[in-house]
Amino acid sequence: MSIVVVGSVAFDDVTSPSGSVKGVLGGAATYFALAASYFTQVRVVAVVGDDFLPEHESVFKKRGIDTHGIERAPGKSFRWGGTYTDNLNEAKTDYTHLNVFEKFSPRIPKEYADTEFLFLANIQPTLQANVRRTMNGVRLTGCDTMNYWIQRTRPELAETLKLVDVLLINDTETKMLANEKSLPRAAQKVLAMGPQALVVKHGEYGATIFFREGAFGIGHHPFRAPTLPIDEVKDPTGAGDSFAGGFMGYIASQEELNREVLKRALFYGGVMGSFAVEEFGTKRLQSLTRDEIDARFQIFRELTHLD
Amino acid sequence: MSIVVVGSVAFDDVTSPSGSVKGVLGGAATYFALAASYFTQVRVVAVVGDDFLPEHESVFKKRGIDTHGIERAPGKSFRWGGTYTDNLNEAKTDYTHLNVFEKFSPRIPKEYADTEFLFLANIQPTLQANVRRTMNGVRLTGCDTMNYWIQRTRPELAETLKLVDVLLINDTETKMLANEKSLPRAAQKVLAMGPQALVVKHGEYGATIFFREGAFGIGHHPFRAPTLPIDEVKDPTGAGDSFAGGFMGYIASQEELNREVLKRALFYGGVMGSFAVEEFGTKRLQSLTRDEIDARFQIFRELTHLD
Repeated sequence: MSIVVVGSVAFDDVTSPSGSVKGVLGGAATYFALAASYFTQVRVVAVVGDDFLPEHESVFKKRGIDTHGIERAPGKSFRWGGTYTDNLNEAKTDYTHLNVFEKFSPRIPKEYADTEFLFLANIQPTLQANVRRTMNGVRLTGCDTMNYWIQRTRPELAETLKLVDVLLINDTETKMLANEKSLPRAAQKVLAMGPQALVVKHGEYGATIFFREGAFGIGHHPFRAPTLPIDEVKDPTGAGDSFAGGFMGYIASQEELNREVLKRALFYGGVMGSFAVEEFGTKRLQSLTRDEIDARFQIFRELTHLD
Repeated sequence: MSIVVVGSVAFDDVTSPSGSVKGVLGGAATYFALAASYFTQVRVVAVVGDDFLPEHESVFKKRGIDTHGIERAPGKSFRWGGTYTDNLNEAKTDYTHLNVFEKFSPRIPKEYADTEFLFLANIQPTLQANVRRTMNGVRLTGCDTMNYWIQRTRPELAETLKLVDVLLINDTETKMLANEKSLPRAAQKVLAMGPQALVVKHGEYGATIFFREGAFGIGHHPFRAPTLPIDEVKDPTGAGDSFAGGFMGYIASQEELNREVLKRALFYGGVMGSFAVEEFGTKRLQSLTRDEIDARFQIFRELTHLD
C-alpha cells in the first residue's frame, strides 16, 4: 500500500556537541518519507525553491519515493538553523527562514488519488484539514502539530483534530493541548477532541499510545514502546518525524488495522527515530537495510520482555 | 530472607499542586522499609529524636518491620521541607534540618548479624562503606547516593562503590558520576567503578538496569521496566526510595540471584514507586495488599508486551 506525507522539505544548519553541518537536506516530510520508505510506497507533497537540486531529489528517488508532489517555486527553500547543547532533547532555534514555504498551499497530484494512508506533518492546521478533506478516501490519517499552532491557532487545530485518526505529539504538547498537567488525564482530553488514538512521544524513553475506548479493538489500556538510548546522539533533528515515518509506514504495510499492528508500529517508530539521530541530517536513514531495522526492533522488544 | 536498610527516618513538610502536609513520617529508610515489607523481612538502622512517638513506630510495626536498629538521640528528628510545582520530578527544598541525623553513626544491632541483604540509602559514603564492611556476610548490597556526595565526596564515594553490588541512581546522577553525557557510556563508566549492576531511575518513565559483562548471567544487554504514569501524582517524595524497596525487597524474597530475578525486581521497583506517589507521605505504602501489587505488576508488564 502507499502513504502520502504533506510537510516541509528544508535545508538545515545544525550544531551539536558532536559537530556541525551546513545546508543538509532536512524537513519533516523528508525525514518521514525516508523512514517510511523501508516499509511502504511513499509519496511526498511539499514545496522547494531553486536551491533544490537533482542531487537532493535523488535522495528521495534512491529510496523509491514518489516526488511528483514536490512543487518548485521561485526563491529559496525553507531553511532552519538550530543548536543542541547538553540537553539533546531540545534545540535552540537560531533562525527559521520560511522562504517558499511561507506560501505553501499543498496540492495533491492526481497520481496520488488512490493513496490509502495520509500523514499530515507539522504545518498550519487549516492546510492540514484541507488536505484531509481532499483525500477523503484514505483508510487512516496521522497528524503532527507543535506548540506554535496549539497556542496561536487553537480553533483551527480543533477542527483538524476532528478529521484525523492518530495524533502524534510529545509530552509537553499533549499537556499544553489539553491544558492539563497529568499525562493520562491530558491524553483522555485530547482523545475527546477527535482522534481514535494518541501517540505521546517521550524522546529517548520511547512513546506511549492511548486509545479511545473501542478504537482499533477492545479495552482501554495504553501501550508503551521503549527505546534504548544509543551511545552517541549526533543530531536529534528529525527524530520525531522519523518516528512518525516508522510508525505510519509500518501501519501502511499491513492488511489489518488493529491494536496489535499499532503496537508493533509504535516499536518501529522508536527504531526509526533511534537510527535517525546516529548521524547528522538524513544520512543514516538513506542507507539502512530492513535487516538492520528488524534487528533493532528485536533488541527494543527484548529490552522489556520478561520470560 | 531479610534485608537491612540504613538511612534516614524523618518528618517532612510537603507542598504540591494537590495540597500540603506538615510533619508526616518520611525519610529514605522509612519509604524503603515499607515498600520492601511486602516482599521480605525488613530491619531498619536509623536515628530519631524525641519527637519520634509510639504512633510513628507503629507504622513500622504494623508492617512487621524490625525497629531494633532505630536509635533514639536527644533532640529533634531530621526534618525536610519541600515544594513541588508543575515539574513533579523535581522538588524545591525549602529547608533541611539534619538535627540528630547530623551525627548519625550507624550501629548494626547483633540481632541483625545474620541478614542476607543490605541497602545503603542515601547517606555519607564513608558511613555507607563502614556499614558494608561491618556486614561482610551479605549476599547482595544495594546502594543509593545523590549529587551532593558525587560533587563533594567523590574519593569516598569511589571507595564505597567498590563494596556494593547494585547502585540505584537517576539519569542526572549517572551522567554526573561518570562525567559523561551519553547515558549508555556513562553507565559503562559507573560499572567500571565497582558495581555488578547499575539501575538508572527515569522517574515516570521507569528504570533501566545495566549489567557488567557476565554479572548475574550471560550477555550484556540492558533491561528496561516501564511504568505507567498515574492520573494524579499527589506527592513524589520517596518515590525513588520506594522503588529501591520494591526492587531490593523482591530480590531478597527469591532463592536465586540471576538476571531474570533482577528484571522482575525492576518491575516491582516501578510498581512500588508508582504506589508511593498516589498519596501524601507513606500513606499508600502502609495499606497495600500483595494482590494490588501483583495486579499492577501485570499491568506494567502488559504495557510493553507484544504478542
